[in-house]
Amino acid sequence: MGERVEIVEVGPRDGLQAQPQLLDTEAKLALIERLLDAGVRRLEVASFVNPKRVPQMADADAIIARLPRRAGVNYIGLVLNEQGLDRALASGVEQINCAAVTTDSFCLRNQGKTAADMLDLIASLARRAQDAGRFFGVTIAASFGCPFEGEVAPATVVAIAARLHAMGVDEIALADTIGVAVPSDVKRLIEAVRPHIGATPLRMHFHNTRGTGIGNVYAAVDSGVRIIDASCGGVGGCPFAPGATGNVGTEDVLYLLHRMGFETGIDIAKVVATSKWLEGPLQAPMQASMSRASVFPPPRAA
Amino acid sequence: MGERVEIVEVGPRDGLQAQPQLLDTEAKLALIERLLDAGVRRLEVASFVNPKRVPQMADADAIIARLPRRAGVNYIGLVLNEQGLDRALASGVEQINCAAVTTDSFCLRNQGKTAADMLDLIASLARRAQDAGRFFGVTIAASFGCPFEGEVAPATVVAIAARLHAMGVDEIALADTIGVAVPSDVKRLIEAVRPHIGATPLRMHFHNTRGTGIGNVYAAVDSGVRIIDASCGGVGGCPFAPGATGNVGTEDVLYLLHRMGFETGIDIAKVVATSKWLEGPLQAPMQASMSRASVFPPPRAA
Repeated sequence: MGERVEIVEVGPRDGLQAQPQLLDTEAKLALIERLLDAGVRRLEVASFVNPKRVPQMADADAIIARLPRRAGVNYIGLVLNEQGLDRALASGVEQINCAAVTTDSFCLRNQGKTAADMLDLIASLARRAQDAGRFFGVTIAASFGCPFEGEVAPATVVAIAARLHAMGVDEIALADTIGVAVPSDVKRLIEAVRPHIGATPLRMHFHNTRGTGIGNVYAAVDSGVRIIDASCGGVGGCPFAPGATGNVGTEDVLYLLHRMGFETGIDIAKVVATSKWLEGPLQAPMQASMSRASVFPPPRAA
Repeated sequence: MGERVEIVEVGPRDGLQAQPQLLDTEAKLALIERLLDAGVRRLEVASFVNPKRVPQMADADAIIARLPRRAGVNYIGLVLNEQGLDRALASGVEQINCAAVTTDSFCLRNQGKTAADMLDLIASLARRAQDAGRFFGVTIAASFGCPFEGEVAPATVVAIAARLHAMGVDEIALADTIGVAVPSDVKRLIEAVRPHIGATPLRMHFHNTRGTGIGNVYAAVDSGVRIIDASCGGVGGCPFAPGATGNVGTEDVLYLLHRMGFETGIDIAKVVATSKWLEGPLQAPMQASMSRASVFPPPRAA
């Protein structure tokens, strides 16, 4: 038995949120059912944000209400403000995630406040969520580069991570939101952050925009990270916008990890089948490599 | 100034050879001119094989005769038998490459002889080529897995590499011909092979079939390899056959290496422009990520 890596399937939220083809609640629940059947045990399934800004997430409350309840399965809902947290708490979702941002330019555009103001807000959200008995994690967006300000110094990320650790958040994720990192960046940032977050679990989130996504997962796992975000089919970004590519594909991450000797508890063939199914509702081809290539070595006949 | 990594541009040979759209000699020479202008200094440009089996390479002799001759530029021609070597020597190409194969099944289908017989032939070809004053390198095909026999033991690759070293070949390349390797495989194999090849330069050749290509380049460079094969636009395999994907894209390798702090002497913007141009003659979209994404951070205005 190899060592375990936990996959956080973010397709139903981060993957879908910018897709031009709206999925109805039934289709999203069918996607989640298929992923559970493949062995996924932790999924980001909704964001409690303004439905006018993110129409794909307008049914967040209905999704949470109708989620299949299974032992050992945890769902995550994203919140970015107090109203979102109110909705998340009312929905009963067991885990809540929020996003800090490394630069003011990005944070102002995405969340309407400066990076420092957002951190103050997160302190308040964390207290409320944890007082209500919920798991509260924070993703540091644009940890490897900002679409507006360019390079982001590792020291900036370290300072945010240290502050989140001081707040007592349950998990810290470092996100390469725009897909600019290379594996050496990943190793350097993990080494820089780790001494400042005590025993807080570290989670990594990559996009494959510049072809480096799977190499970055390798670097993260090689640096000891054991929680990786991935999106079924590599859904994410917008398949119709040049240059906007998706999250690392769950099936591609599974191929890497299984071949490295790690266990995930997830059946890659079922994830690939789910990706092919998802091409129907999304009316778009999947971007993950393993949605086209065969597993190696070929599975033996039973 | 960062340390140097040499890119071997294999697009004009390995990239093109299986493309359904035949390029005429003029188009191939235009491709080579563009790559030289981008700063590429070593290119695999032709294979001296049976034109009935590889129609795309039928004009090998004409290509070599008309290559632009520039100081510091070296061209490579592939040979697989004595007749091919005759043609290569007559053509005047300065470097000759040959392919050993790890398994009999693959070697018989590709080269009509067993892996052991191919090695004996290579010993003869190497002597003749080097006696004629030519650089003679050998690629070990299917070093990470065979499409017919499955797993390939590192010991098999080590034994072939040791034999090639004993023959005195000028360079040894390890090729993931079918794109199954993950970065941990790459590190393991390089560490296994290196003690057995003395000072013979080691070169690596990857395909991105399962999304691991750029991660594998990272692992190779992190293990000290300084010669990497890449194909402009990620051309290779067949864009119309499901599951057959190309070589690692030169522009993707450049993004990785430059962001890691290495120098290549190659202008990524000019390679991207060449890829976009190549979509015309090939009538197919490029597969490299950087043919769609922007360089990060954005280049400063001059």
